Amino acid sequence: MAVRALIFDVFGTLVDWRSGIAGAFREAGVPGDADELSDAWRARYVPILTEVNDDARPWGNFDDLHLVTLDDLLGERGIALPLEERRRLVAAWHRLDPWPDVRTGLEALRHAHVISTLSNGHIALLVDLARHGDLRFDCVLSAELAHAYKPAPAAYLTAAILLGVAPAELMLVAAHPWDLDGARAAGLQTAFVARPLEYGAGSSVHEDPGADVSAGDLHELADLLAH
Amino acid sequence: MAVRALIFDVFGTLVDWRSGIAGAFREAGVPGDADELSDAWRARYVPILTEVNDDARPWGNFDDLHLVTLDDLLGERGIALPLEERRRLVAAWHRLDPWPDVRTGLEALRHAHVISTLSNGHIALLVDLARHGDLRFDCVLSAELAHAYKPAPAAYLTAAILLGVAPAELMLVAAHPWDLDGARAAGLQTAFVARPLEYGAGSSVHEDPGADVSAGDLHELADLLAH
Repeated sequence: MAVRALIFDVFGTLVDWRSGIAGAFREAGVPGDADELSDAWRARYVPILTEVNDDARPWGNFDDLHLVTLDDLLGERGIALPLEERRRLVAAWHRLDPWPDVRTGLEALRHAHVISTLSNGHIALLVDLARHGDLRFDCVLSAELAHAYKPAPAAYLTAAILLGVAPAELMLVAAHPWDLDGARAAGLQTAFVARPLEYGAGSSVHEDPGADVSAGDLHELADLLAH
Repeated sequence: MAVRALIFDVFGTLVDWRSGIAGAFREAGVPGDADELSDAWRARYVPILTEVNDDARPWGNFDDLHLVTLDDLLGERGIALPLEERRRLVAAWHRLDPWPDVRTGLEALRHAHVISTLSNGHIALLVDLARHGDLRFDCVLSAELAHAYKPAPAAYLTAAILLGVAPAELMLVAAHPWDLDGARAAGLQTAFVARPLEYGAGSSVHEDPGADVSAGDLHELADLLAH
């Protein structure tokens, strides 16, 4: 079935969270390896979202959840940091740079398709990221609107309803197989975009053999979808 | 308090629904004065939204409600039209031209402020209108997300929550006093934009003495907010 709209995962797929967060750790003077701290903070992301989806934790947006996971991380390592500094680290997730192909790649994709975010990050956070990176979307959608985090089916299906398309006419673009699996389970088409630098140079590379399309960046994706 | 984000009413404030809908009536060969038919269709808008807000009618999006009000209008006048033609008229609301100042006016306003729609029209409809008119927003919000139509307070307050700002930091931009009244009742700031051609040349002109700012178009609004 023809793809009528594309929805994009954001953290890792469109923006380079690791460099931005490591920079914020360095600026804050937090002791330790800033890259490793960033990875350790990010590693707490899927577990805490699972708690929310399982009703083991009330709904919280990314600012709320990032503060909880940061406190846990710093507590575990015995690092004391004033609340103001911790809030500054949480705010760093609002100012992450896009990967180099993203701004122009989205423009290319927007010619033939409606394009929207579908991130677990909340709307206000996505608006800040889009403005920071000068990224143009037709729409900004978030799991916040479904009050269910990806990979819960409701997150993807709410996007399809709001965009007025059938799930099979909607394609998720993401760098993470767990997210693409969730989209497929909800009946969406999927595009895998490789982001080998997400966890730094030399980290293990993801693949997703189940994806309808696989591309090295958004320009290649635009070419593939045009043919 | 400083304005952190602007939300825009769309039909009449940003796009010229009357010319577009009258053109669609003419194209469909509907007998009668196409301008008058457009006004009569639009006049059924506030009453049917009130029914939804009063729980006298289940939630429906603008495509649903436009079809109901069109059927009522045509029925009242004894005009028979196949469903396919009626659906084409409903779809005409997705392809309305913006007023001449809107595309560049939004760009000017976007430099200093987050800008979003807040229309009673549903998200998919707003996406189509923004693409049709090449209008760039930071976000596309709709009363659909609150399941309450303006002027219900929930419509405005949901926008404030999603944009992460206090109601008093949010400004509604609209050409209609009833909408601006609703926003004020919810604690928002308000900007009135005059659209003397909304109901055709020579129609009565709205004013809103209660607005925090009043402007003749979006460029004037950008100037006023910059000072």
